[in-house]
Amino acid sequence: MAELTGNCLIGQSGGPTAVINASVAGAVSEALNHSCIEEIYGCVNGVLGILNEDFIDLAAESQQTIRGLKHTPGAALGTCRYKLKKQQDFDRVLEVFKAHNIRYFFYAGGNDSQDTADKISKLAQQQGYELRVIGIPKTIDNDLPITDHTPGYGSVVKYICTTVKELACDNEAMGQHDLVSILEVMGRSAGWIAAGAALAKRRDHPYDAPHLIYLPEVPFTTEKFVEDVRRVLKREKYCLIVVGEGLVDPDGNYVSTSSAQTDAFGHSQLGGAGDYLKDLVEKHLGIKARSAKLGIPQRAAAHCASKADVDEAFMAGAAAVKAAVSGVTDKMVTLIRAEADHYVCETGLADLSDIANGVKKLPREWVNEDGVSMNHQFVRYATPLIQGESTPPYDHGVPMFARLDKVPVDKVLQPYET
Amino acid sequence: MAELTGNCLIGQSGGPTAVINASVAGAVSEALNHSCIEEIYGCVNGVLGILNEDFIDLAAESQQTIRGLKHTPGAALGTCRYKLKKQQDFDRVLEVFKAHNIRYFFYAGGNDSQDTADKISKLAQQQGYELRVIGIPKTIDNDLPITDHTPGYGSVVKYICTTVKELACDNEAMGQHDLVSILEVMGRSAGWIAAGAALAKRRDHPYDAPHLIYLPEVPFTTEKFVEDVRRVLKREKYCLIVVGEGLVDPDGNYVSTSSAQTDAFGHSQLGGAGDYLKDLVEKHLGIKARSAKLGIPQRAAAHCASKADVDEAFMAGAAAVKAAVSGVTDKMVTLIRAEADHYVCETGLADLSDIANGVKKLPREWVNEDGVSMNHQFVRYATPLIQGESTPPYDHGVPMFARLDKVPVDKVLQPYET
Repeated sequence: MAELTGNCLIGQSGGPTAVINASVAGAVSEALNHSCIEEIYGCVNGVLGILNEDFIDLAAESQQTIRGLKHTPGAALGTCRYKLKKQQDFDRVLEVFKAHNIRYFFYAGGNDSQDTADKISKLAQQQGYELRVIGIPKTIDNDLPITDHTPGYGSVVKYICTTVKELACDNEAMGQHDLVSILEVMGRSAGWIAAGAALAKRRDHPYDAPHLIYLPEVPFTTEKFVEDVRRVLKREKYCLIVVGEGLVDPDGNYVSTSSAQTDAFGHSQLGGAGDYLKDLVEKHLGIKARSAKLGIPQRAAAHCASKADVDEAFMAGAAAVKAAVSGVTDKMVTLIRAEADHYVCETGLADLSDIANGVKKLPREWVNEDGVSMNHQFVRYATPLIQGESTPPYDHGVPMFARLDKVPVDKVLQPYET
Repeated sequence: MAELTGNCLIGQSGGPTAVINASVAGAVSEALNHSCIEEIYGCVNGVLGILNEDFIDLAAESQQTIRGLKHTPGAALGTCRYKLKKQQDFDRVLEVFKAHNIRYFFYAGGNDSQDTADKISKLAQQQGYELRVIGIPKTIDNDLPITDHTPGYGSVVKYICTTVKELACDNEAMGQHDLVSILEVMGRSAGWIAAGAALAKRRDHPYDAPHLIYLPEVPFTTEKFVEDVRRVLKREKYCLIVVGEGLVDPDGNYVSTSSAQTDAFGHSQLGGAGDYLKDLVEKHLGIKARSAKLGIPQRAAAHCASKADVDEAFMAGAAAVKAAVSGVTDKMVTLIRAEADHYVCETGLADLSDIANGVKKLPREWVNEDGVSMNHQFVRYATPLIQGESTPPYDHGVPMFARLDKVPVDKVLQPYET
């Protein structure tokens, strides 16, 4: 494969995570090692930044800032949920790439974002414009296929497990009478995040909190729920419940939908499963319940990030650049669990189209028969992903996050109407 | 003052905090230094443990466990919200104290708990039973009078500021269109906790998040709220709001009460102010809003505790023992801000009755004229309280908290019907 010389563009898309900036840090750091990459640009707010020709010069950022990205939540380049729809949008992307001699495009995101990357890649091939496109996996949802797991997942699980353990200490202290405590966590269509709470249990202590985990994969009925809570309260002084926001009834309808709004990809915006369960407890059991909804903060909790996750996110960003420079295109970096006695994570590559069109479901056989707890196979899978503590530097008692200078790249084209 | 020889009893009361166990650790550690204190008992679930003669032997716990309490949230001895009502209850307390030769009683809690301690102390004096009673301040609400601040407050503020800074990174990343993000925090009758979120702003960056802070002290109107949000969104891409759960309208009614339940002290159980504001934004501004409700986890967040707070909680526990041994009784330990160039915290003593009957209000003059931000006086007051990071040890990726062995002390009396 002949060396391809030109500029590279890095973008972030979809919901931010605690570690998506670590992937950008990994990509930038690696790009600096390769002379075939001339300029290192970032696109502001994902594909919207491409359409608007809104690029910043990442090489102009200080090394300190790039290093700081490893501990900074959110998406430092800005992200978007904009979906490229019309052919005109795709043509514009190529026009902008050509205008800035973009020959390497790295896009960190989930299924929808990898679909976008795939379409851009295919169009460039059709038009004979040499472009190498590599996706970087990102999503707290852990639902990308082929890759063993996804950067962002380990950190949200670590934060939730930490919260569960702390909440359990608080609940246990109040042990005068029945107490039901509900923690609502993210997870639109898959229970990966809620399931992760199982790691809060000590080994060989199946009765530790969380006592009940409700997953979108297991159809919810009020009858079983009330029975589950009763069973726990016969044994324990309190009942700590973790519920995924996307809980569905046996007909597949969300048990609670806070509004009828949908996002640009047609997904329902959820919320309120925790309060829904709280009401059920109070109504059917006459017991006081309390709920907390971690909301967006859970995917941004860099102060409680998993070091394994941060390191793998960085590695995935670097691996994307290495693959592209070596001639690969139209792939996403995957994480592979090496065959070894202890956990070792390596990177691989998968076709973007396979990523875009697949979903990794939580294996039903990893859920115990009771439907509200996870078995050892899940624990073995997920435990390595939350190991090690990555904490940001603190200044005056609060975390100090990196901010990009965002030196703009001169525009050379006419504005585009999105 | 003649030396008083006998056993000591330590209890915890009211809502747990991230650092109330550090106070127990401080009291136990100090008690071991004094030969006049023979046995070191803990009462299980506050005054209920006294009524039920439910004591544990704290001296039997390993040093490792006592040290671990410094990082363990909840209330390791168990807590309660039981209020001693009838004379019979008080008589029982003295009966139990006499039966176990309890001569030192240390009670960590808020106003209601200090009131209980005061009444026990007064009754012992009346009956000529020599007993030294010292309260240890505890409450995330920071509303105890006389003391400069209260252990537990600094840690909840540090956690909320950390969450605000992380949420701001996430919100900023989504900067395509107006976004309103709401974080509901605790604070039944005072805005100390919500006000603390102001420390998330960098110095000299008044436009940093949180953009709007709604306090129970400032009567809430929909008109001003809508205007406030509009003003912020003219200037910023997103609007991050922190709201105290006890927000009231100009008539003094809670804007949102999730249920009509009240606790044993007659306090309303609140919740839902965040969702209430979310609905207002969507209804009046037609803008998508997201809310998170930190709930109980915020007062249990030992993984993000303030080192200053942990150290002061420990110091307050030790100071209680020192005071009692030196002959003091019927007082609560206070924290005093020493007159010095830099922040130095010392301990003092105040009458239990003065603590029980007072409330420290958030000074209205520390709130800016806009009613939704705090001035430099508040920042100067609160900043020292969140300094330093205290983190628990981790095991397999999750925090490891201390658990008491709880070796029971033999009961010598007949059971008591509470």
